[in-house]
Amino acid sequence: MTKLFVIAQGGGPTAVINQTVAGAVLAAREKYPDARFLGARHGVRGVASGDFVTLSELSKTDLMRFANTPNSGLGSTRDKPDEDYCQRILAGLDHAGASTFIYIGGNDTSGTMAILEDAAGDAIHFIHAPKTIDNDLVENDHTPGFMSAALFVANAFLSVDLDFRAMPGVYVGIVMGRHAGFLTASAAAWRRDESDGPHLVYLPEVPFTEGQLVGDIKRVLDRHGRCVIAMSEGVQTADHRPLAESLIPAHLHERDDHGNLQLSGGDLGQALKLAIKDDLPGVRARVDTFGYLPRGFLGTVSDIDRAEAFAVGRYAVEASEEGSGSVAQQYENGKTVLKLVPLSAVANKTKRMPDDFITDDGCHVTDTGLAYLRRLLPPRPDAWTPFV
Amino acid sequence: MTKLFVIAQGGGPTAVINQTVAGAVLAAREKYPDARFLGARHGVRGVASGDFVTLSELSKTDLMRFANTPNSGLGSTRDKPDEDYCQRILAGLDHAGASTFIYIGGNDTSGTMAILEDAAGDAIHFIHAPKTIDNDLVENDHTPGFMSAALFVANAFLSVDLDFRAMPGVYVGIVMGRHAGFLTASAAAWRRDESDGPHLVYLPEVPFTEGQLVGDIKRVLDRHGRCVIAMSEGVQTADHRPLAESLIPAHLHERDDHGNLQLSGGDLGQALKLAIKDDLPGVRARVDTFGYLPRGFLGTVSDIDRAEAFAVGRYAVEASEEGSGSVAQQYENGKTVLKLVPLSAVANKTKRMPDDFITDDGCHVTDTGLAYLRRLLPPRPDAWTPFV
Repeated sequence: MTKLFVIAQGGGPTAVINQTVAGAVLAAREKYPDARFLGARHGVRGVASGDFVTLSELSKTDLMRFANTPNSGLGSTRDKPDEDYCQRILAGLDHAGASTFIYIGGNDTSGTMAILEDAAGDAIHFIHAPKTIDNDLVENDHTPGFMSAALFVANAFLSVDLDFRAMPGVYVGIVMGRHAGFLTASAAAWRRDESDGPHLVYLPEVPFTEGQLVGDIKRVLDRHGRCVIAMSEGVQTADHRPLAESLIPAHLHERDDHGNLQLSGGDLGQALKLAIKDDLPGVRARVDTFGYLPRGFLGTVSDIDRAEAFAVGRYAVEASEEGSGSVAQQYENGKTVLKLVPLSAVANKTKRMPDDFITDDGCHVTDTGLAYLRRLLPPRPDAWTPFV
Repeated sequence: MTKLFVIAQGGGPTAVINQTVAGAVLAAREKYPDARFLGARHGVRGVASGDFVTLSELSKTDLMRFANTPNSGLGSTRDKPDEDYCQRILAGLDHAGASTFIYIGGNDTSGTMAILEDAAGDAIHFIHAPKTIDNDLVENDHTPGFMSAALFVANAFLSVDLDFRAMPGVYVGIVMGRHAGFLTASAAAWRRDESDGPHLVYLPEVPFTEGQLVGDIKRVLDRHGRCVIAMSEGVQTADHRPLAESLIPAHLHERDDHGNLQLSGGDLGQALKLAIKDDLPGVRARVDTFGYLPRGFLGTVSDIDRAEAFAVGRYAVEASEEGSGSVAQQYENGKTVLKLVPLSAVANKTKRMPDDFITDDGCHVTDTGLAYLRRLLPPRPDAWTPFV
């Protein structure tokens, strides 16, 4: 019987998510020359409805063009399948004659795969391929997509810090990340000493109060004459409510199908701006919402991220022989290695920043955290320290 | 007598503004080997207070490191000198023994230079060197700094459009630009056809109404299933008030020393989000504020912009022999040429997008406008059209 692979992309896109598709298709072509390889449009929604494109017909050139294009080229979904939906997915896979289903995504995606594996038994192998700019998958040292997003954020904060040396004030850049602060922390990756921004880094892992913010800003302004802040969209107050939620009127709250509050940096930005304006009158303040910019920005795609995301796709096909599981990017003896771990080990779990990555005062990244980020990013560009 | 140059940087920074400093210092070194070259810290403020750094002592290597560092490395200011302040600037130049004062900046900066020239007579030559990401200086085909900022914006919208193909909805990216829409329009530079985003481009040159926005979005959603919008911070309602101003409570208004409303994309973003939420219930909408990100972003500096900004600095020194004036980047016979025009021709004037750059419906860029932008930007990256 001809081997048939189905691949799909779930959740938020990354700059390198199509590399994983290309890696998988090319690995399958080498290993099983007669195999068919289908891509489902819009994740499991396309699997359930039989909405496929035939990837095995694409030339290597076209596949590599696809690979180098950022954001989910097969389309994505945030559907969180219930039991009935899972049955329709399984029926879709069965109808297509799939022997392997590879689903590229984050923790919600791995959760869907764990349910499918439980429901389907051994007839189909379910492989979760990791992807998230949040870098919050357990079992992984880092996730495909994170490096490129982090490279955007590091570039942005190096540039904005130079901007605010030229004309001092307070700058807040709001960075995505619901539960894990890795992407926000990457703002500090190229910082050389305490005079470089970001001077404050607020992470979802550390309870936050508005009063603290103003005190922190005053302290930095006294010392450095300017204050550059990296703020995660997912910052929480001490009672574990998102700061945005506590500051935004209830009728503006939206939740997605997973029950996650649709955080909007713009709303948080407005709230922050008011807080700074009220408590630091006369101080020039600017709040920018990075929002979707870091996650698929073509101008700052990491070469290593590209290569690793491709390798994850290859490995997903190779490992699918063994059975179901989640591909994990681990770090051993100074290099990234790939392993297949049980889906249940990853499903619906969230990795947060380790305690030793966060300074005792809760508003910066430790040397340990910086060493981790610097291992993943290219060296700091050679920028002259301004005369001011 | 030893020739003495003073150079300063005014207004908002760009990614290549230090190139102009380096070009000027190196040109002076070649032309007048004994000349001294001082940089004033924080624009005319440093001139008035005698706060200088000696640039002529820097090696070529250090000058080129400085050149390649984005944002105003000498510091900047938004001070708008009155008569008394101008006397202090002249006294500062006199005390330093300056024969030439080069001031890099936009229209406000050229205005300051025109006043200084009037007050000082011929003893000192006043050279305005152009710089602005807004691209709004008359007499110039385009201004140093614009290309790099436009490259960021073009990259961002290409990437975000791919993002929203994967998961449809409405996206609004708010882009700087008080009076001129060039930077916002550059969002469309790499668009191939009407299915590519941005699908709507709102410019300060075209009166805007909220009701129009919702109608425009509905029309695009019906046709393309998603709607990507490039919105200038400086959009105005029909009565010529900034849209942000008309939507934001009066007590939050701030004006700078020039009487300009301190537009904040975050506030406009919040207002837009509410408008979309109220009138298009259930539609996924995201508003991001690009804010300061495009203007000095290290990851997308244009090579041509770098070279042109450097050439402007060289030319400022060479042309200073002739007397005072404003360096203008003009376009003749398919190439950029530099000229020295009278300060009064540029001072305090604003170039806006020509009518033939804007479509009749007022919410997009014409082929003429796109041809202009494409002449300034590198070719569109080779991105695969997604399967969705």
